[in-house]
Amino acid sequence: MTKDQLFEQIKIKKSFLCVGLDSDPLLIPDFLSKYDDPVFEFNKRIIDATKKYCVAYKPNIAFYEAQGTKGWDSLKKTLDYIPDDIFTISDAKRGDIGNTSNLYARAFFESMNFDSVTVAPYMGKDSVTPFLEYKNKWVILLALTSNIGGLDFQTKRLQNGEFLFERVLKKSLEWGDEDNLMYVVGATRAELLTKIRAIVPDSFLLIPGVGAQGGSLENVAKFGMNKTCGLLVNSSRGVIFASKGTDFEEAAKNEAYSIQVKMHKLLKENKIL
Amino acid sequence: MTKDQLFEQIKIKKSFLCVGLDSDPLLIPDFLSKYDDPVFEFNKRIIDATKKYCVAYKPNIAFYEAQGTKGWDSLKKTLDYIPDDIFTISDAKRGDIGNTSNLYARAFFESMNFDSVTVAPYMGKDSVTPFLEYKNKWVILLALTSNIGGLDFQTKRLQNGEFLFERVLKKSLEWGDEDNLMYVVGATRAELLTKIRAIVPDSFLLIPGVGAQGGSLENVAKFGMNKTCGLLVNSSRGVIFASKGTDFEEAAKNEAYSIQVKMHKLLKENKIL
Repeated sequence: MTKDQLFEQIKIKKSFLCVGLDSDPLLIPDFLSKYDDPVFEFNKRIIDATKKYCVAYKPNIAFYEAQGTKGWDSLKKTLDYIPDDIFTISDAKRGDIGNTSNLYARAFFESMNFDSVTVAPYMGKDSVTPFLEYKNKWVILLALTSNIGGLDFQTKRLQNGEFLFERVLKKSLEWGDEDNLMYVVGATRAELLTKIRAIVPDSFLLIPGVGAQGGSLENVAKFGMNKTCGLLVNSSRGVIFASKGTDFEEAAKNEAYSIQVKMHKLLKENKIL
Repeated sequence: MTKDQLFEQIKIKKSFLCVGLDSDPLLIPDFLSKYDDPVFEFNKRIIDATKKYCVAYKPNIAFYEAQGTKGWDSLKKTLDYIPDDIFTISDAKRGDIGNTSNLYARAFFESMNFDSVTVAPYMGKDSVTPFLEYKNKWVILLALTSNIGGLDFQTKRLQNGEFLFERVLKKSLEWGDEDNLMYVVGATRAELLTKIRAIVPDSFLLIPGVGAQGGSLENVAKFGMNKTCGLLVNSSRGVIFASKGTDFEEAAKNEAYSIQVKMHKLLKENKIL
């Protein structure tokens, strides 16, 4: 999917919501256990319930990988079930050297046809560029993560005074651009969005940490929104586990809808709609 | 496996060789294609040919993951086939937050019983500590990698003058110690081993980049060896693809043996044997 196509979807749906399919088999409703593939059944119903209100789905690969081969089957079926006009993110946080990154790229972009994959920057250029060789596919580079450990290294200052995450952003612009690179920026770090926008004004940011982790959607929009929206705000547990009973689809739908309403308002306020 | 047990194996085998099972299906000998699981058949024969000369095996997970569910089957069978007295490394370079790292830990330490997993440090403490909760299991943290992109961020200096990789080493000592943490240090950066040993004198280092990537075994031993050896030096393609013909087992055996002979000499010179 191209940047224009993604922006078009944001305008059509009046939403920049990404739903995180962190479908831990231990947390999905018990009554689904009668199905051959309970995780896929859960995802299918979550997708049906929320697809009107979101522009992206993001399975965190760990939840599938932990199930072994069964998990990879569930993931593949889930991906095939997601409508083509919805952006897909393989939240894999991969990062390895040249020929190995090629293999990850093949796994996520060819075997599974994801639109994008999250990549860790620590190993530098040759861990990122193999993913960029695929047309209309994206790397979403970890820049400033929402977890507490994000402060251990990412916000350390280098000798020239810049933060490590700023260095990551600047360096990445030697490898790609706003048409094939996005960045993970935690909503819990909204105060740093201004610094980030100074370096990557036109890029899309994937923002986890709204809701459960305490970030504010309003602040994210205030400091992070650009003229093509430029934001994909993720909610995982808050949507998919809004209820763990038989009403889980209705609850997920209501939660996604309620976020979409807020996003619609923010898009209007920022004159994007 | 404990540190003492690993050191014991090093003394018994007179070797600190790790064989990287980067068994790309496109590169294994053609005649193996008649088997149900050519990758496992290849690994089985490589293990039989080299197990006398090495103390560790390190499958890079990308090569298996790229094959989908079939690849995970090959990996599981391979791991089950590796003798119990050989240290196993899941070269996965994972790194995600709390509950997700827990899942990766479960996948590699419980579903597959690896002794260790490589982890990227960029997300900090809560991406590493979940792995450290497993008794006698190890995190091998990326510190200073051998690839060219390793210079993009790892060797940037922070405001206090230390390199980023030094900060990673120091910080990690707040999370674990020499009994559950090792570090990846590329052989191509042997001149920096002195700085690394100043921070982690007693820890094991996993050293890729000898051979194909140009690092020198002698320099690695000179600057990196400690009183319990403290080194696992990896060779992947140099051993497993020493020949791509029907003599591949013999060629792998000869290559592993030739490295072991050099290692034996270095262990004696350093008075470890």
